[in-house]
Amino acid sequence: MDYGRVLEQIHATVLPTLGQGKVADYIPELANVSPTHFGMAIATLDGQVHTIGDARMGFSIQSISKLFALVMALKVEGDDLWKRVGREPSGTPFNSLVQLEHEAGKPRNPFINAGALVVTDILCTRFAVPENALSDFLEKLSGTPAIHYNHRVERSERRHSDRNSAMAHFMKSFGNLRNPVDQVLDAYCRHCAIEMNCVQLAKAVSFLANHGRIPGSDEEVLDVSRSKRLSALMLTCGTYDAAGDFAFRVGLPAKSGVGGGIVALIPGECGICVWSPPLAESGNSFSGSLALELLTTLTGRSIF
Amino acid sequence: MDYGRVLEQIHATVLPTLGQGKVADYIPELANVSPTHFGMAIATLDGQVHTIGDARMGFSIQSISKLFALVMALKVEGDDLWKRVGREPSGTPFNSLVQLEHEAGKPRNPFINAGALVVTDILCTRFAVPENALSDFLEKLSGTPAIHYNHRVERSERRHSDRNSAMAHFMKSFGNLRNPVDQVLDAYCRHCAIEMNCVQLAKAVSFLANHGRIPGSDEEVLDVSRSKRLSALMLTCGTYDAAGDFAFRVGLPAKSGVGGGIVALIPGECGICVWSPPLAESGNSFSGSLALELLTTLTGRSIF
Amino acid sequence: MDYGRVLEQIHATVLPTLGQGKVADYIPELANVSPTHFGMAIATLDGQVHTIGDARMGFSIQSISKLFALVMALKVEGDDLWKRVGREPSGTPFNSLVQLEHEAGKPRNPFINAGALVVTDILCTRFAVPENALSDFLEKLSGTPAIHYNHRVERSERRHSDRNSAMAHFMKSFGNLRNPVDQVLDAYCRHCAIEMNCVQLAKAVSFLANHGRIPGSDEEVLDVSRSKRLSALMLTCGTYDAAGDFAFRVGLPAKSGVGGGIVALIPGECGICVWSPPLAESGNSFSGSLALELLTTLTGRSIF
Amino acid sequence: MDYGRVLEQIHATVLPTLGQGKVADYIPELANVSPTHFGMAIATLDGQVHTIGDARMGFSIQSISKLFALVMALKVEGDDLWKRVGREPSGTPFNSLVQLEHEAGKPRNPFINAGALVVTDILCTRFAVPENALSDFLEKLSGTPAIHYNHRVERSERRHSDRNSAMAHFMKSFGNLRNPVDQVLDAYCRHCAIEMNCVQLAKAVSFLANHGRIPGSDEEVLDVSRSKRLSALMLTCGTYDAAGDFAFRVGLPAKSGVGGGIVALIPGECGICVWSPPLAESGNSFSGSLALELLTTLTGRSIF
Repeated sequence: MDYGRVLEQIHATVLPTLGQGKVADYIPELANVSPTHFGMAIATLDGQVHTIGDARMGFSIQSISKLFALVMALKVEGDDLWKRVGREPSGTPFNSLVQLEHEAGKPRNPFINAGALVVTDILCTRFAVPENALSDFLEKLSGTPAIHYNHRVERSERRHSDRNSAMAHFMKSFGNLRNPVDQVLDAYCRHCAIEMNCVQLAKAVSFLANHGRIPGSDEEVLDVSRSKRLSALMLTCGTYDAAGDFAFRVGLPAKSGVGGGIVALIPGECGICVWSPPLAESGNSFSGSLALELLTTLTGRSIF
Repeated sequence: MDYGRVLEQIHATVLPTLGQGKVADYIPELANVSPTHFGMAIATLDGQVHTIGDARMGFSIQSISKLFALVMALKVEGDDLWKRVGREPSGTPFNSLVQLEHEAGKPRNPFINAGALVVTDILCTRFAVPENALSDFLEKLSGTPAIHYNHRVERSERRHSDRNSAMAHFMKSFGNLRNPVDQVLDAYCRHCAIEMNCVQLAKAVSFLANHGRIPGSDEEVLDVSRSKRLSALMLTCGTYDAAGDFAFRVGLPAKSGVGGGIVALIPGECGICVWSPPLAESGNSFSGSLALELLTTLTGRSIF
Repeated sequence: MDYGRVLEQIHATVLPTLGQGKVADYIPELANVSPTHFGMAIATLDGQVHTIGDARMGFSIQSISKLFALVMALKVEGDDLWKRVGREPSGTPFNSLVQLEHEAGKPRNPFINAGALVVTDILCTRFAVPENALSDFLEKLSGTPAIHYNHRVERSERRHSDRNSAMAHFMKSFGNLRNPVDQVLDAYCRHCAIEMNCVQLAKAVSFLANHGRIPGSDEEVLDVSRSKRLSALMLTCGTYDAAGDFAFRVGLPAKSGVGGGIVALIPGECGICVWSPPLAESGNSFSGSLALELLTTLTGRSIF
Repeated sequence: MDYGRVLEQIHATVLPTLGQGKVADYIPELANVSPTHFGMAIATLDGQVHTIGDARMGFSIQSISKLFALVMALKVEGDDLWKRVGREPSGTPFNSLVQLEHEAGKPRNPFINAGALVVTDILCTRFAVPENALSDFLEKLSGTPAIHYNHRVERSERRHSDRNSAMAHFMKSFGNLRNPVDQVLDAYCRHCAIEMNCVQLAKAVSFLANHGRIPGSDEEVLDVSRSKRLSALMLTCGTYDAAGDFAFRVGLPAKSGVGGGIVALIPGECGICVWSPPLAESGNSFSGSLALELLTTLTGRSIF
């Protein structure tokens, strides 16, 4: 597959759409990003990296951090994690408290905010400084020396975290949060504020396309079964309340963030990251989703 | 892949579990089926059929009919169908009216009862006798001469259809049902009461593993893109409110029915059907789900 | 109290508001009523009747029938009725199915549609022709010879009853409806289509102001305790999802209908009926509610 | 009315029921109260006080504080308060977040926790030390020198306030809380932890029976209209999700607390307080509710 050429075709097609959608503006630091950025990277399992556009420009990974935090939590906690978080699509917006009330404080899956707060709570129990542990982990996965969170974004997130505070206190009232709410929220906001670029993220996610092993080093991050299961979870729950439609149109396991990034993977082939800040109503990058749909259309690659 | 041997291994493993779960008993005709039946069939794209157990014993396909009714509706209605039915997991039980009220009579997907009623409404508009059209279609897909619905099951379903009547009237009040409620319910209950066996169903679903073409005749049922998208929909919505967990454990597109049958497929390889009447709490066949999980574990085949 | 003069003051004040709000238009027969009608009648326990405006012009009583149907059901069924219908405000719109699903088919109170359908189901079991029994009962309560339902309104209601059909089938699926859905809906629509005027309704409701006895004849309709309890129910549940606000502003037990009528009562003093077709968003007559608020303000009479 | 004798009759009848129900145990300080306490006081508008049982033993007023906090907020904020809090029964449990999510952070009424938090937020804006202002106000209303909150109860409440924290943060995320969450929760928990006895509370509530004026001093607390409206609100929303049933059985405006106290009033006659710690499932005192029901039955006094 000539991925370089495919990326060029994608770029040409999405260019006229750049700017459509709406850049996340609940914190000023995200709102200030130019809406016309577009970058995409494909990291194949044999070590090649193909890029187009702003693929080496850093952005706020936001909810993409939920994927990697979950991997870390699974490594330390194992399947016990699933006693505290479900594996079903939520059927409601990512920050809804209704489902939590109906299901006694157990979030539907680890990719909605409530679920990610429980995952973060596990990391707070297991690591002295969870945000550092996550950065280290992302450095290893992406083969990059220095990954950090953006302090201004983190402080801004923290100041606007009333809804997440509500969820955290609510789950604590059901006994599904072990550490102090403030500590969990601090770590959670730092995870969201991590900055990476498309190349780093495409590499970081590629172990899931490689059945759980980091391409190159062959180090096992997750065993084959867990790696496949995590991909399944990305497909059914990775793109907010539009996962069904995303699977329908794109057909690849993916995880999106409100910074406009989406990571995805083709099993056995490659890790992928696309970035374009403006979001569709679903909360997923408008042009990013289109780019991934084009990728599967142009290459004939999808998991189905 | 030696599917014959794989089926034997699966059979040996699930045998001790037969009888676990609970046979559907909302109508007597389903409740009377022996809980220890187990059959499984794999129809490969090159025309081979592998079977084990009661693979040639007919059973009530129930909600599996929703898959084939949808294919027919897509063929006649095209993507306009999606204006009246969504493509997202419901996050609520298959027969819930809550979601319908919150989303103004548009069902979340075509595999919950409300969605299947809209699909049936389309078939009622397009076909003089929808149940005959569906039988004919299933005969062609499965290469079987005579497929019928069971009159006693149909009458019994119809007598116990108050909840479906409620949904149908509710959607009609929102303008999302065009034909008289009684006519739609008649057709719907007849579709559910169709009887087929594992071999027939494995063959019938295999066109989806073949990118939309019937293996052998190569007749196109759906184009490549629609075929893949339908598989994606099966993965995210095909197994009631447990689709996330099913994708996590099994990792194959599938559609289940309360008669204990589940159809599934491995893209590019085969159509599959397993049958075991007792259901897990989720409404999916207990031992049938286990058999499919074993299939992906033993063969290493899953879409991820 | 000089009620004649009070009515004149009320009339003068509400005149400029007539036409505000929106006449119910879900069936053409209601939509065609002139929005500027206004009538009001007060029937004191000593037999006087004070009127103003269109107090002798008949209108469709609609949900006001729920009050009298409930009285009849209480007389024949007694407190067993409360096993099938609750006594709490619903907190959701009058025709919502969400509450029914969450509470297993038991309506929150007898004044929302679902509750009135259960009440009607009881009347269908107890009376050969429930609509005739209700008319006879209203004739006795109001001392009027001939009370009938409007056939055109009834047929129109019946043709637009999909939402009520949905509720009825839904409750039947929970076992909380005994008679065939069609029979219950027929009776229900006929009850709603009864036509009366303000004088008749003010008289009909006055037994509740008289601790359960018909003023004049002193015939007991309900015992003192049941009569008071029914008034309490009117206060907490009688004016759709605005009962709290209505009690806050008006402070009298009342029951409204989408035909624009509202019956109310001052315990120990009088029965009241006001009619003005246009409805506020709450479903209660806009100018009618205002007239009742003026009544308590001008007279200093309220139950608090 | 010989209230002394009525109280004796009530006492005799409720004695065998004492201990039925369940003492609130979400904090140890409440759980330790003896379940067989029973006290009742009636303060008539002419200055007499009738008591029975433990009427002078202090208890934790808990949610009864919501009534007096609301009166204070109405005095300083006026009807603007109703822009931030509704006046409808909630139809859901007192600590539900579902309604808040569906109605954008505006609580249904000031007597559920969310509504009381908004009321407290108003007091935090208007008073330097809201809990002292509330104590002072209660001292004036009850004619008692020293009313305090219990520090141990307050600290315990504060430690178990995750659900209230969740609500407060949730409302803040909708912009319906102005002061820091912690400050509002501190004041809220102190209000709940105030200790008073039946005599003090019967006197404190009697101004509502006197159309807004403190009996004796004749000082106006609320004008006639607001006083009546507040009584209406007590009737429709004062006893958690059982207000409909309470109005049905008792027929008096009332406000209950999980400490087992209930204040009520007969307009034009008296203020009432009853106390018995064990609660019915509804959250209202089991024997206290019975005592009030007996009061209206024995005296024939109710508002209907």
